[in-house]
Amino acid sequence: MTKPLTFAVPKGRILDEALPVMARAGIVPEAGFHDKGNRALSFDTVGGDVRIIRVRAFDVATFVAHGAAQAGIVGSDVIEEFAYPELYAPVDLEIGHCRLSVAEPVATAGLPSAATHLRVATKYPNITRRHYEAQGVQAECIKLNGAMELAPSLGLSGRIVDLVSTGRTLKDNGLVETYEIMQVSARLIVNRAALKTDSRVAELVEKFRAVASGTSA
Amino acid sequence: MTKPLTFAVPKGRILDEALPVMARAGIVPEAGFHDKGNRALSFDTVGGDVRIIRVRAFDVATFVAHGAAQAGIVGSDVIEEFAYPELYAPVDLEIGHCRLSVAEPVATAGLPSAATHLRVATKYPNITRRHYEAQGVQAECIKLNGAMELAPSLGLSGRIVDLVSTGRTLKDNGLVETYEIMQVSARLIVNRAALKTDSRVAELVEKFRAVASGTSA
Repeated sequence: MTKPLTFAVPKGRILDEALPVMARAGIVPEAGFHDKGNRALSFDTVGGDVRIIRVRAFDVATFVAHGAAQAGIVGSDVIEEFAYPELYAPVDLEIGHCRLSVAEPVATAGLPSAATHLRVATKYPNITRRHYEAQGVQAECIKLNGAMELAPSLGLSGRIVDLVSTGRTLKDNGLVETYEIMQVSARLIVNRAALKTDSRVAELVEKFRAVASGTSA
Repeated sequence: MTKPLTFAVPKGRILDEALPVMARAGIVPEAGFHDKGNRALSFDTVGGDVRIIRVRAFDVATFVAHGAAQAGIVGSDVIEEFAYPELYAPVDLEIGHCRLSVAEPVATAGLPSAATHLRVATKYPNITRRHYEAQGVQAECIKLNGAMELAPSLGLSGRIVDLVSTGRTLKDNGLVETYEIMQVSARLIVNRAALKTDSRVAELVEKFRAVASGTSA
């Protein structure tokens, strides 16, 4: 018997949209996956030799990059933040659309700025640093795991870099989007070494590619 | 009018135990704080000039260290991981007890090891690195935000460093605790600069100290 493939999916936002896509590619989690109270992290799939692990989005990338999972689904924001060389993202699943943007208080937005140093609160310090470096600005990034939108009103930072979907959260906190760094959508990711050595990974990529292009059965 | 003090509390594990302690120190959140569906991050308190923010445990330390919150409650694990010099933890609240430990698969635990290099999955890379450095072992830390207990069975790492309370999660995943790095409990933390410049912060420390020593009214 060969070991089952491990497929990593993120808790939260993307998962509801990802499940139908996975189903069309033949990956259907066991019933227990949908139990609200179920705190299990690892699940069998229906009739397949695939095991699903459900972890935080940032951890999806880490498990796949290290080959602990052979494939998974994660947002392009996370892929870009880590920039793991071992990680290959061959298929845009066209789900989980949002954008990663700079936002700041309505009061300062649009004012001319000669700042060569600024503080930014973000979950994405690498992307943020690269973004400002390209503009010749040194950004001091304060890493937060959530609640970025509190930072400006509490004086933690003048700006934030965060995911924006409807813009509602920003508005509720007196913030306005001032620059879009990247469009985000969810991708199929695979471990490069696993893709070369395990034909099931290549087959998985083809299945997801067919689903994404609308040519699957 | 002076600005309200901002008091940061962590989502999750510690909060239920922290609320009665805060109440005895005079900090009672508005009713909306307890609404399950309420996704707000910032709350008024009953009759006080204190505002509560509810953020992730790691972010509690970050907000307080930067003076964006003047005080808060967080586990000693988080304090130790960041080791922010601006952060002062004057009162052990004797709640949220657990321990931070090394765990590994039952199969390898206790075997003699001559390893001078090992991989450890953890949410606490700084504490973990320091722990192994003190033993002359170079530890490659793989930072995970959760689901550490999956790492050994998936081949991500031979060991994990994680919070342990009952040990149930470890057991369910075929792991056993092999070394206790530190005992953990929740502390009152304050920003050092705020403690020097705002007498309300010093008063808050005295109130919590009285509560913790059982001498409060």
